[in-house]
Amino acid sequence: MVSRLKRFLIGKPMKSTHLEDEKLSKLKALAVLSSDALSSVAYGTEQILLVLITLGFAAIWFSIPISIAVLGLLLILILSYRQTIFSYPSGGGAYIVAKDNLGTASGLVAGGSLLVDYILTVAVSSSAGTDAITSAFPSLHDYRVPIALIVIALLTILNLRGTTESASVLAYPVYLFVAAVFVLIVAGGVKLMVEGVHASIPEWGSAVNNISLFILLKAFSSGCSALTGVEAVSNAIPNFKKPAEKNAAMTLVMMGIILGVMFLGISLLAYGFGIAPNEKETVVSQIANATFGRGVIYYAIQAVTALILFLAANTAYSAFPLLAFMLAKDKFMPHMFKVRGDRLGFSNGIIMLGVLSALLIILFHGDTENLIPLYAVGVFIPFTLSQLGMMIRWLKVKPAGWPVKLAINTIGMLTTLTITLIFIFTKFSQVWMVFVFLPIVIFGFFRIQRHYMNIADQLRIDIDEEKPHIKGSTIVIPVAGITRVVLHSISYAKSLTDNVAAVYVGFDEEEIRRMEEKWEQWNPGVRLIVLRSRYRSVMRPLIKFIDTVEWKTAETDHITILIPQFITKHWWQNLLHNQTSLLIRAYLYNQKDIVIATVPFHLNR
Amino acid sequence: MVSRLKRFLIGKPMKSTHLEDEKLSKLKALAVLSSDALSSVAYGTEQILLVLITLGFAAIWFSIPISIAVLGLLLILILSYRQTIFSYPSGGGAYIVAKDNLGTASGLVAGGSLLVDYILTVAVSSSAGTDAITSAFPSLHDYRVPIALIVIALLTILNLRGTTESASVLAYPVYLFVAAVFVLIVAGGVKLMVEGVHASIPEWGSAVNNISLFILLKAFSSGCSALTGVEAVSNAIPNFKKPAEKNAAMTLVMMGIILGVMFLGISLLAYGFGIAPNEKETVVSQIANATFGRGVIYYAIQAVTALILFLAANTAYSAFPLLAFMLAKDKFMPHMFKVRGDRLGFSNGIIMLGVLSALLIILFHGDTENLIPLYAVGVFIPFTLSQLGMMIRWLKVKPAGWPVKLAINTIGMLTTLTITLIFIFTKFSQVWMVFVFLPIVIFGFFRIQRHYMNIADQLRIDIDEEKPHIKGSTIVIPVAGITRVVLHSISYAKSLTDNVAAVYVGFDEEEIRRMEEKWEQWNPGVRLIVLRSRYRSVMRPLIKFIDTVEWKTAETDHITILIPQFITKHWWQNLLHNQTSLLIRAYLYNQKDIVIATVPFHLNR
Repeated sequence: MVSRLKRFLIGKPMKSTHLEDEKLSKLKALAVLSSDALSSVAYGTEQILLVLITLGFAAIWFSIPISIAVLGLLLILILSYRQTIFSYPSGGGAYIVAKDNLGTASGLVAGGSLLVDYILTVAVSSSAGTDAITSAFPSLHDYRVPIALIVIALLTILNLRGTTESASVLAYPVYLFVAAVFVLIVAGGVKLMVEGVHASIPEWGSAVNNISLFILLKAFSSGCSALTGVEAVSNAIPNFKKPAEKNAAMTLVMMGIILGVMFLGISLLAYGFGIAPNEKETVVSQIANATFGRGVIYYAIQAVTALILFLAANTAYSAFPLLAFMLAKDKFMPHMFKVRGDRLGFSNGIIMLGVLSALLIILFHGDTENLIPLYAVGVFIPFTLSQLGMMIRWLKVKPAGWPVKLAINTIGMLTTLTITLIFIFTKFSQVWMVFVFLPIVIFGFFRIQRHYMNIADQLRIDIDEEKPHIKGSTIVIPVAGITRVVLHSISYAKSLTDNVAAVYVGFDEEEIRRMEEKWEQWNPGVRLIVLRSRYRSVMRPLIKFIDTVEWKTAETDHITILIPQFITKHWWQNLLHNQTSLLIRAYLYNQKDIVIATVPFHLNR
Repeated sequence: MVSRLKRFLIGKPMKSTHLEDEKLSKLKALAVLSSDALSSVAYGTEQILLVLITLGFAAIWFSIPISIAVLGLLLILILSYRQTIFSYPSGGGAYIVAKDNLGTASGLVAGGSLLVDYILTVAVSSSAGTDAITSAFPSLHDYRVPIALIVIALLTILNLRGTTESASVLAYPVYLFVAAVFVLIVAGGVKLMVEGVHASIPEWGSAVNNISLFILLKAFSSGCSALTGVEAVSNAIPNFKKPAEKNAAMTLVMMGIILGVMFLGISLLAYGFGIAPNEKETVVSQIANATFGRGVIYYAIQAVTALILFLAANTAYSAFPLLAFMLAKDKFMPHMFKVRGDRLGFSNGIIMLGVLSALLIILFHGDTENLIPLYAVGVFIPFTLSQLGMMIRWLKVKPAGWPVKLAINTIGMLTTLTITLIFIFTKFSQVWMVFVFLPIVIFGFFRIQRHYMNIADQLRIDIDEEKPHIKGSTIVIPVAGITRVVLHSISYAKSLTDNVAAVYVGFDEEEIRRMEEKWEQWNPGVRLIVLRSRYRSVMRPLIKFIDTVEWKTAETDHITILIPQFITKHWWQNLLHNQTSLLIRAYLYNQKDIVIATVPFHLNR
């Protein structure tokens, strides 16, 4: 049943040789990898305005210079990351670059904050998408959490089906979104030119009370949240069709241009229409409303915006499992993240991402506004480390033209470092959690690695010296009476060794006498050992007996205890059996060198 | 650790021969078994007044005739149950009496409703006790749920220690409560005689608007909730010191007299002081306040009342496990309720009662007022069935003086039946749940019995004909490389049989070639079977291989699969291992006749 449901949801298993077919072309890559970055347009401007409006409506003209500054930063990032792509053709995520050039610890800081960040991406994007829906249909406002959870479930299923298939599904909404935003920018621009700007908007350069550098930096850093997702392309180079580096670099540049134009366009329109941020309606929704009114086009724009935001979450679905795989390969994460599933995706990573982000949504009741700064910091820390790593690399390798390359990465590093610091200083109350989670995650990485290393040590053998060593065998069968299960267990045990003991725990003499008589009459060829329990406990005497057996024979014999297990037809029937065998298992679990053999007995009614 | 905590909380294990010492004397029995009945005094009058007050303050004089009617009913019940005690000296609970005389189905109806009822008793009594505390200390009103839960936890621990020990602890509060209520009645009576009754109280027999038989019956049935707990003595006869029947009958009569006097006294005082029920303060609290003011005596009375109510819950703790034991003996409940724990109590029943009643408290946020009618119906159904059973018995057995006995039980049956019907008609909205739960519980009883019967059939063997049958053995060891675990497993397997196969699942040819070479070099004396997996699944080829082995050798061989299990030092390390072995287990679980042997490998770091 479960297996059939799995087939229906995620499709038939695929052969490993299909892996090459799953690689991405440039256009598909743009869809899969840039939806996170492009979707930032839907909230980037709004984040800036939210800070400025605290100074009053007059301050909103500052959104234009701030947007331009953000664009400058985008340019720097694109240039820096282009260099990374060519230097790390097999995947230049911040984890790899930092580990390679700055050492393991820095790599883990970058990797850890990215892992946490991908979870935040899914949570933030799916709630932002839900906000786009509820802006259009305010009556849905109370169902934000279930809507967001359904979206996460769908994305998880889609990704379990495999990357290419999700790319095909995802390509259209991304293109539609880009088209819709361009239509909106052009139509809005024309309308502003024809009708003139909104009467009440503050004049460009007008003075603002209480303005301070702190507020402006805060608004700038808020705008930088629009740049999250830019790193996705360089992490995913191995997923590209050949020549992977060139395709990836081209995709990155295309993405940068589209993102830049859309972001600036939206900021200009928001200014032109004199839009102030509003809790119940997003800025994009207000612009669309001002341009087209609440008609078909408005709803189309909202729908496409919601979709792109949901798909932004999808970027994390390709990045998270890949990063988890790389960390697991280096033994910093559990082995299970190394296994490709039936459909060639890293199923465990996909499922873990889905579960954790759903938890975040539930925890924050879908109000993930407050998570945006956290999420931005989580991106800018690895940005900085990755740039720093590239700088070190240029200084070490010194390829042709290295001074220019070094300069670009140095500017990139300084900028992202500055932004990280701005985030920390202006929004400490929202980002402090990073400094709690990150050390915990990194500590976990090291503990896991140490554990795997220890085990490898303990498991290693010298294959020339160490060979199997044959010993005797003692099998112990706890019996409660003479039944088909006991018959079955004794048949099994006697087929393996002659050294079999049946152990019976009796509570009163009468009972014990009857059992002994019946056993003699049955005469199964196995001696019955009777233990007397004055405390009505079955476990205590049994454990004591096994201890004695171990003490006497462990030198010469392997000791096995046979535990019959009823295999019931219905789950609830399990409650009626197997308690004793569960207890015996739990007790013996920590006993050294006793094999527990479970002999199934299938109940057919 | 867990085991030491257990010892600390519930004490050292006791020998079975201590069972006789655990029996109850009359005075102790009065403490253990009557706290439920006696404690009803704390809310019985209040329940009547709550109904009457809906007609206005003028109606409260009706509480006196209604209380007298309740007393009449108490007399009938005591007389009826005295007869049951002498007829069923080994324990005449409603389950036994009804099953014996009316058949299994009736017995299960009685038993099922009592089981549910004991859970309600604990929930209702512990919240009523909490109410007594919060009447005295209104600031604790918000902590009602945690207070009630702590009380349940304490009672559970107390009962896990054993019956006598709890009786010693419980004797004092019961006697103190009886003493306190008598003091209150005398002092209040004196005060009323000296100062005269409250000015505003309605005159005896004064006319009341809107009075109806329905309301009066409803008030009467509410008052009957004071009679719950009367059955406890006749259920628990085996717990009495010898001569058990006589001691039990005496205890029952003593309890009846004390209960009757206290109930009537409280009702009279409530009338005399002109007390109206009040959400924030109990009636007893108001009476104590009116008599003594908020002084030391007032707080003492409240404290003792709270205590007795908590101990009322304790009655259920002796009755529930005993009834569960009787049902389990007849195979209507899981075997585990038949096992006496270390301290001779039926631990599983005690724990189950604690957990379920705590759940009720949490579910109803401690507002168990609404559960009182449900609880009363749950008592009166078995009351009625038990009386009916006694009637049938007299007609069948016809001992000396049977017509009088028959008459007493007939009157008892008719009265309790009438009250049950009154409950159903006047409070249907509060008691309908009984008609949902009861059928489910009874259906469960029958399903469990059928299951145990089926199993007994399947397990039975003819010990003269069926003897162990020795076959060959094949052991399969899944290996992922050449490690100490594999060495260990092969040593174990070869000690048992020569027919051992190591199975390796490989994903690519290079890997497979290396493994084969290394295996040859090692040469452990076991052939290596390589399975190729093109779907990266370890499970699928393995399952298929085992199917093949089973198909080829099941006739001649027992098949065993060895699964190594890492025993880790820390729980979290489990997450890093054993996933594959868990999967193999889960898959093979339903495979017929394959023994799964778990070979432990203890990691020491």
